[in-house]
Amino acid sequence: MSTTEGKPPSPDAATVEEMARVATAWCGMHGLVVGDRADPRSGTVPGVGLVHAPISLLPSRLSESFWEQACDLAPVFNELVDRVSLDGEFLQDSLSKTRQVDDFTSRLLDIHRKMMDTNKDENIRLGLHRSDYMLDSETNSLLQIELNTISVSFPGLCSLVTELHRTLINQYGNLLCLDAKKVPGNEASRQFAQALARACDEFNVDSAVVMMIVQPEERNMYDQYWLVKYLKESYPFMICFDTFLNYEGYEFLFLKFLISKRCSDSFCLLALLQFSVQDLLCSLKTLSEVEAEGQVLPDGTLVVDGKKVAVVYFRAGYTPNDYPSEAEWSARLLMEQSSAVKCPSISYHLVGSKKIQQELAKPNVLERFLENKEEISKLRQCFAGLWSLDEEEIVKSAIENPDLFVLKPQREGGGNNIYGLDVRDALIRLKKEGGDALSAYILMQRIFPKASLANLVRGGVCHEALTVSELGIYGAYLRNKDKVIINDKCGYLMRTKVSSSDEGGVAAGFAVLDSLYLTDK
Amino acid sequence: MSTTEGKPPSPDAATVEEMARVATAWCGMHGLVVGDRADPRSGTVPGVGLVHAPISLLPSRLSESFWEQACDLAPVFNELVDRVSLDGEFLQDSLSKTRQVDDFTSRLLDIHRKMMDTNKDENIRLGLHRSDYMLDSETNSLLQIELNTISVSFPGLCSLVTELHRTLINQYGNLLCLDAKKVPGNEASRQFAQALARACDEFNVDSAVVMMIVQPEERNMYDQYWLVKYLKESYPFMICFDTFLNYEGYEFLFLKFLISKRCSDSFCLLALLQFSVQDLLCSLKTLSEVEAEGQVLPDGTLVVDGKKVAVVYFRAGYTPNDYPSEAEWSARLLMEQSSAVKCPSISYHLVGSKKIQQELAKPNVLERFLENKEEISKLRQCFAGLWSLDEEEIVKSAIENPDLFVLKPQREGGGNNIYGLDVRDALIRLKKEGGDALSAYILMQRIFPKASLANLVRGGVCHEALTVSELGIYGAYLRNKDKVIINDKCGYLMRTKVSSSDEGGVAAGFAVLDSLYLTDK
Repeated sequence: MSTTEGKPPSPDAATVEEMARVATAWCGMHGLVVGDRADPRSGTVPGVGLVHAPISLLPSRLSESFWEQACDLAPVFNELVDRVSLDGEFLQDSLSKTRQVDDFTSRLLDIHRKMMDTNKDENIRLGLHRSDYMLDSETNSLLQIELNTISVSFPGLCSLVTELHRTLINQYGNLLCLDAKKVPGNEASRQFAQALARACDEFNVDSAVVMMIVQPEERNMYDQYWLVKYLKESYPFMICFDTFLNYEGYEFLFLKFLISKRCSDSFCLLALLQFSVQDLLCSLKTLSEVEAEGQVLPDGTLVVDGKKVAVVYFRAGYTPNDYPSEAEWSARLLMEQSSAVKCPSISYHLVGSKKIQQELAKPNVLERFLENKEEISKLRQCFAGLWSLDEEEIVKSAIENPDLFVLKPQREGGGNNIYGLDVRDALIRLKKEGGDALSAYILMQRIFPKASLANLVRGGVCHEALTVSELGIYGAYLRNKDKVIINDKCGYLMRTKVSSSDEGGVAAGFAVLDSLYLTDK
Repeated sequence: MSTTEGKPPSPDAATVEEMARVATAWCGMHGLVVGDRADPRSGTVPGVGLVHAPISLLPSRLSESFWEQACDLAPVFNELVDRVSLDGEFLQDSLSKTRQVDDFTSRLLDIHRKMMDTNKDENIRLGLHRSDYMLDSETNSLLQIELNTISVSFPGLCSLVTELHRTLINQYGNLLCLDAKKVPGNEASRQFAQALARACDEFNVDSAVVMMIVQPEERNMYDQYWLVKYLKESYPFMICFDTFLNYEGYEFLFLKFLISKRCSDSFCLLALLQFSVQDLLCSLKTLSEVEAEGQVLPDGTLVVDGKKVAVVYFRAGYTPNDYPSEAEWSARLLMEQSSAVKCPSISYHLVGSKKIQQELAKPNVLERFLENKEEISKLRQCFAGLWSLDEEEIVKSAIENPDLFVLKPQREGGGNNIYGLDVRDALIRLKKEGGDALSAYILMQRIFPKASLANLVRGGVCHEALTVSELGIYGAYLRNKDKVIINDKCGYLMRTKVSSSDEGGVAAGFAVLDSLYLTDK
């Protein structure tokens, strides 16, 4: 019954089986679900072909000191992204070789250059990031895997996993010697929604909405819907609107509130009453829909499908697959040219590229962007070794000891990293091709996380496996000119995968969603 | 924006489409789901093959006076069931002809007779009923379709439909001139759970659980899981248990509370600490598992899988299909012979048969069971015409005007009623067969509900249809000897179906779940 810090007792097979049934039933009842690949409609039609999200049955252990370290880093990385994003030449220079070998980066840089050429300033800058870490058992240190600045996924579902694990521990904790207090709270989706709502307020244009850019087919749609739900709850005038609906005779109060908060003239009030509430909050569009329905007014206002857009929130556009034709690129440019707040802007997007991560890890580069020595030292402490392939000594060493390195291509989305002996083969091939080919990749120190046994549940089936975990800390940053309005950590994503699998994506089918169980420092 | 009592404006097709997407997404996020028939595992494995429950997009209208009438009837029917259940000879006599033609009723009567022969008293009697009504447009009156006393379904999901409809009205109400206040609250699952928990308290045996009897395959499992969830919340000591887990140093308080509330000796405390909390609350068993794992101790205690059972709650056992072998009948008898509270007892089960409904509708029969003339009059007002097939005049009239009658077999579960010209054919055939054959059916006045347009959503597809609705009012009744502890209405189930479909089952695929929108009296 009491809390122990050692390994918990292993529950017997029947109990594990029962817990897995309780857990997957809980998922179905509480929206911890995804679209099932087996159902062709599950990515386009809400409410059909649902299956519980792949989950770990119990949270994974991490020392509280590493947890605190990762949380402390979030606001520093938020600030760093903002600083780097303002140095357009640094981004262009650092990525100049990458553009030779990667069309996607090249197109992003083209848009970025256009913005630089027109001296376009982004006064309101919103970042919803996630910095991913693994605990390296060789050095017993927390090392950054990557910093994601666009379309970070699972803020909705990860909060639910935390709730699920606390529920299971409350039910079975006495059997397992676990204590639900040790699972840290996770409000990622609510905090992201609040940041989006706050950015709308800063944008301060009557009845302008948040537009979420989505893929035409999205099996992770419920993760996004949770954000939409909390976005609705974040709008202060919504409470008043509900009040109006629930109690008669409050019309005057309602209108007055709108005038003070968001509306400046009677025309707008009329518009508010005509729109559905849903319209007021959030519209979901694909890039090709934006191309077909969008325009930028002479004053810079982005209008899509007749609605003014305050914030463009990208949950698509991070991979070349999202741009099958020129239409999608044209939409991306249109949005970038508008006055709408982009989350992320093209600059923020580029800061998240692996090449920039590697540049920032070079000596004396962080010092160009940050003043606080303590913060710089904190950042550097979590940097793994990162090198470009023009560093011949390192390439030589990687060919000799390929197991100590990971070869990473310059694009987003898992599944493309190269491990083990393939590193050697690839490096030899790339050296032979020479020149630009080398710029398509960076080398990274391979991290060796400690493996531990966990029960993974996928498709209603529970199995025990040797696993490793990756911790992502969400961060939100909002500033308007000189004023930093939000700079916070926003909950966490724990992903656990079979240790024999090298890739980390939950959506890609390799990992499961997990939460944290904090142990003593 | 204001509430109007006339027909609401029809939203355009695009809005309906958007609302349907919002609705089905809401279902997926809030557990308003069922197992998809297309997935063979969805009835046995929680969390896989989920699909939103079939729903009406908006609530169906009903005059507030009919709503109040139906609610008022609930406690009267609860009391009536209890009174009739005590008259064993009345049940045996009324069903004596039915048993000749229906094996299922015959088996139930056998068990019932055994209990009568041993003079077995049920001191604690728990009923969770649902009385179903339709509004007859010919007479403009609310008429009872049937009274269900076993395994009434959808208390979990119907509460969610109410919540969904209120959410949609809050979002789109201004477009539709609807007001969420007019959708009556629905706490069916919470109230049922409280009644089950209260029955456990009355049973008052240390660490005895609620055992839910389920079918081996159940696509409506989430409806049942909602009840399990609320059952947990209904246990007062659970709150204390959570407190204990959340705040250190409360051990003493916790133990003391248990002693006063449920535990009488230290052995029991030990048992509580060893069991998981889940075990303490509710176990789900099939009839064949009860046969394999159950026994009745000499003192009458039912023990299944090592756990003492306080309340047997049937969510199976209402159809002959649930008794494929003698094992299931043996389990049913075992439970009936035990001292556990049966919900329902064999007597309560029999009171819900259609033959008893028809017997109660005969002149001067209600007066045998109830004293209050006003209550008797209220009941009679909602009785449709009901006749046995030995009333020759009525049979003749039904052959002449088959459209005015429904021919109902004596068993539970939709899909077997006979309508229209088939009534004539069946009656002619049954008359020819003569004797016992006629006892297998009763004739009922056909009700002609007014049809209205509604948008039905099933499998992610929304379509408009001419529909009719059936209103079920849940009721809970608990007494211990002379003390009536609960006699309440417990929320409602609204089912809406395409008016061309004669059968009413949601699970059978004909109807959708709906809620009520009250209009002026």
